Amino acid sequence: MDRTQAGDLVQLTGSDHKYRLVRLIAGAQVQTHRGVIQHDDMIGKPWGTLVTSHLGRPFYLMPPSLSDVLRDIRRQSQIVFPKDIGYILLKLSVTPGQTVVEAGTGSGAMTVALATAVGPAGHVISYDVRSDMQALARRNLEELGLADRVLLKLQDIASGFEERGVPSLFLDLLNPYDYMPQVRATLASGGFFGAIVPTTNQVSFLLSALERNHFAFVEVCEISLRYYKPIADRLRPTDRMVAHTGFLIFARPVAEPEHRENIGAAPEEDSGTDGEGILPDLEA
Amino acid sequence: MDRTQAGDLVQLTGSDHKYRLVRLIAGAQVQTHRGVIQHDDMIGKPWGTLVTSHLGRPFYLMPPSLSDVLRDIRRQSQIVFPKDIGYILLKLSVTPGQTVVEAGTGSGAMTVALATAVGPAGHVISYDVRSDMQALARRNLEELGLADRVLLKLQDIASGFEERGVPSLFLDLLNPYDYMPQVRATLASGGFFGAIVPTTNQVSFLLSALERNHFAFVEVCEISLRYYKPIADRLRPTDRMVAHTGFLIFARPVAEPEHRENIGAAPEEDSGTDGEGILPDLEA
Amino acid sequence: MDRTQAGDLVQLTGSDHKYRLVRLIAGAQVQTHRGVIQHDDMIGKPWGTLVTSHLGRPFYLMPPSLSDVLRDIRRQSQIVFPKDIGYILLKLSVTPGQTVVEAGTGSGAMTVALATAVGPAGHVISYDVRSDMQALARRNLEELGLADRVLLKLQDIASGFEERGVPSLFLDLLNPYDYMPQVRATLASGGFFGAIVPTTNQVSFLLSALERNHFAFVEVCEISLRYYKPIADRLRPTDRMVAHTGFLIFARPVAEPEHRENIGAAPEEDSGTDGEGILPDLEA
Amino acid sequence: MDRTQAGDLVQLTGSDHKYRLVRLIAGAQVQTHRGVIQHDDMIGKPWGTLVTSHLGRPFYLMPPSLSDVLRDIRRQSQIVFPKDIGYILLKLSVTPGQTVVEAGTGSGAMTVALATAVGPAGHVISYDVRSDMQALARRNLEELGLADRVLLKLQDIASGFEERGVPSLFLDLLNPYDYMPQVRATLASGGFFGAIVPTTNQVSFLLSALERNHFAFVEVCEISLRYYKPIADRLRPTDRMVAHTGFLIFARPVAEPEHRENIGAAPEEDSGTDGEGILPDLEA
Repeated sequence: MDRTQAGDLVQLTGSDHKYRLVRLIAGAQVQTHRGVIQHDDMIGKPWGTLVTSHLGRPFYLMPPSLSDVLRDIRRQSQIVFPKDIGYILLKLSVTPGQTVVEAGTGSGAMTVALATAVGPAGHVISYDVRSDMQALARRNLEELGLADRVLLKLQDIASGFEERGVPSLFLDLLNPYDYMPQVRATLASGGFFGAIVPTTNQVSFLLSALERNHFAFVEVCEISLRYYKPIADRLRPTDRMVAHTGFLIFARPVAEPEHRENIGAAPEEDSGTDGEGILPDLEA
Repeated sequence: MDRTQAGDLVQLTGSDHKYRLVRLIAGAQVQTHRGVIQHDDMIGKPWGTLVTSHLGRPFYLMPPSLSDVLRDIRRQSQIVFPKDIGYILLKLSVTPGQTVVEAGTGSGAMTVALATAVGPAGHVISYDVRSDMQALARRNLEELGLADRVLLKLQDIASGFEERGVPSLFLDLLNPYDYMPQVRATLASGGFFGAIVPTTNQVSFLLSALERNHFAFVEVCEISLRYYKPIADRLRPTDRMVAHTGFLIFARPVAEPEHRENIGAAPEEDSGTDGEGILPDLEA
Repeated sequence: MDRTQAGDLVQLTGSDHKYRLVRLIAGAQVQTHRGVIQHDDMIGKPWGTLVTSHLGRPFYLMPPSLSDVLRDIRRQSQIVFPKDIGYILLKLSVTPGQTVVEAGTGSGAMTVALATAVGPAGHVISYDVRSDMQALARRNLEELGLADRVLLKLQDIASGFEERGVPSLFLDLLNPYDYMPQVRATLASGGFFGAIVPTTNQVSFLLSALERNHFAFVEVCEISLRYYKPIADRLRPTDRMVAHTGFLIFARPVAEPEHRENIGAAPEEDSGTDGEGILPDLEA
Repeated sequence: MDRTQAGDLVQLTGSDHKYRLVRLIAGAQVQTHRGVIQHDDMIGKPWGTLVTSHLGRPFYLMPPSLSDVLRDIRRQSQIVFPKDIGYILLKLSVTPGQTVVEAGTGSGAMTVALATAVGPAGHVISYDVRSDMQALARRNLEELGLADRVLLKLQDIASGFEERGVPSLFLDLLNPYDYMPQVRATLASGGFFGAIVPTTNQVSFLLSALERNHFAFVEVCEISLRYYKPIADRLRPTDRMVAHTGFLIFARPVAEPEHRENIGAAPEEDSGTDGEGILPDLEA
């Protein structure tokens, strides 16, 4: 990956820190508000190098991170933020080669993240009832070269998911609490369920639905990300930050509902959470 | 993955919510403070089912998530937390099949996360100067079946990394700021650099070192995770939380240092960060 | 206030940072787990000085801050925390000389804070239905010399507050939403109402009750306090923190209910809140 | 305080939630971007009532809280925020009737808060080297009727404060660490010192200066305030928030420097802080 080549996805970054994702094509050109750049001037260059527009304005040629791609994704709806996506992938244990189901597709940001994490050997099945959203998601996936890992289903999950025994499932919907029987039917026993909702009322509804449908190991959390001004001798947080994107809810379907109250119920406080002082017992 | 089988890694969870990771072996038994369980009683069972110890105490048989595994990993040092790992993987753009370099190995928690994310086709090269830590990390990796993706190097990175052109590199060290020339030499131009440090003083030192060594797109942040008591009609955050694990620093080596001040410098406030209202321009 | 004298309240602090509040009395002695100290050895000393117990253990003689007093107050119930109290006093505009009403009294921490803020010319009226709590609060108030500013009423506020036209009223109760008509009857029009509740469900109930009872300028917030380890060259937040005490709700009764929807309704986002960039117009 | 009268300070609030503070004067009028309002139409009205401009636009007549006044204060500099002020007043133990010293005066927001808290029997002495700032602060104080409690001194504190034995002192300066000997000379032994600074570097410098100058009980913290959208059935935090205003540092001068290392040094973690489970010992 020494030098850029035709077909590469490039993050073109100007002095205003505005990012722009461009797929390099011989002979093409890109219009920016700071001048025109010929793709041919960007092909065969070392990554991280500077190119200039016809107005002499400088731009960096950077390979985009998944975080950059997600941030700049074409969208018609609120998307899940990188700070949340990273943790969701860990909690749902999404790993290369596996299958994961999600609903709804939305603009496809989460779909892109899932498709990237499962890799070329994995599969993402994504449900949505809006064809315009799936068209947008398909376009985003195609531009990122991820379309062949993803199956978009234009179906209402009220009538159920078609898959069975899937290891991980994620819901980004207004009313996830209405689909818990459907989720249980498609998730493998012991599988990983996750959802994101913006309001506390939705969290409460979902907690009730999880309880009625025999989920255990229920966890509710929120993740905050605070940026600092990266100045060595005047280090301080930025003045403002994103205060809220959504509450994350994780749970796991278990086989025997009758002991649910005693095991797998609400964790006490934050004991045992997030890796503090728990001695391991990895027994061979 | 319908039923457990010999060789599976099982997360055995009792009514006190204490987790225990067990590798199933025919004929073996596991001692818990709530009685003995025969592995044979756990093999061939549906995941998510309940088994009981010889004292009649119930335990769930769950497949562990990466987050669970990381939390329970055998350790002799502070490890990176799941809340941070998820975001680091996104920011370093760690994807299936790639190579990633880290130092130091420590107890191997980050190594496990990186090895999981790069998948069976990827590679992790991990440096440390302490042989006891690498022995521990090796044991952790072997128990999780990840050892063949990881190359542990018992070397001081002061004399440099041996790799060249690597796409991503992560430092979890006391003094990452002392190794920026070494990092630059091994990272591909335009590659992804990340580090975690606990104190603001270390952040300032690292920011200076990044500037001296022509890194751009520098980002400093911290991630907080707040749990809620998952009770539908009394929803509230837990009383206490982890207030701090470390500051995350990300940066990217760029080719032309002379324009560093103008481009790729400190982002203004939080503008343009974390996906707010930026319209995409994925151009074909 | 140069030197301590009999009758002074002293905060005696040992090397373990455990605080102890002591009222100085000639001839008395105080037992600590690090030895006995004679009050006579503490009387007439410069503030901030060291005294030693009969075991030779050192203790600082400090005047306690209101924050210290609140933290160490004798209690049988959860008390409001200093981080919340400070903001509540500002939002309720509690100032020297005024009258303020609260319910319930609880252990009296908020009562102590209110009584301190209104000063010797002010009055606090505090309702509770539990005589044991009011006895405890009375004892706390007496020990702090604040009892003569406070009227404790052992009454159920379901049958109403006896005061009329009070400028500020604070509720620290399980079900503040059940008493909005009573609050409206006793608060001056345009007065300041505040409450604290631990769960989101209670916040929602209270918001509905405020709307039904023609309150406007409704504000819901939570305040977090994060400590840092005060070490110059290793500055960092403490490892753990209090994640939640309660949600604060503020509102104001207004005269004309019919325009409530248009004015004084929910503030948009955080615009206009907390003093950012709003140019003043103090017109004479 | 049933009805407004000439001389009252009124917070006039329109349907856009923009506040405006107006001092009522018979015969005067106020211009808003939603029309003109005659003061005579606002005098003698019940508080909390609606008045309309000549364009028929509605405005509430509310008594302003201290928090509102601080937010809207005329300013030429960054001011301390209410979330911080409330806690500072508690930690510095500012109570009715006392004397408190501050530097610099700035736009006078902190001065207004201190003057309000000490009441008509108290005194605030405020130093600044900029006459324009003190002129602005004086105007703000006069409009709020607080000028007679405040003494503004146009002096450089490098040459020392003129007061001796003051119980509380607050610094809001770029370089508070340069004035610790001066602070120690004016503060009573055992008195309360507080400061606010925006960067971690300043915190580190101040911590070193406090140590050199024999301060103990050093505390560093930051306070966050997160607003919620006050909607009962869609309760959620606002999208964005103020991420940082400043770090608060509190410390107390003690008499005997030689034991500083052992007592009154850095508190361990957050133990003993903020009122959790500490049983009181108020001894009579």
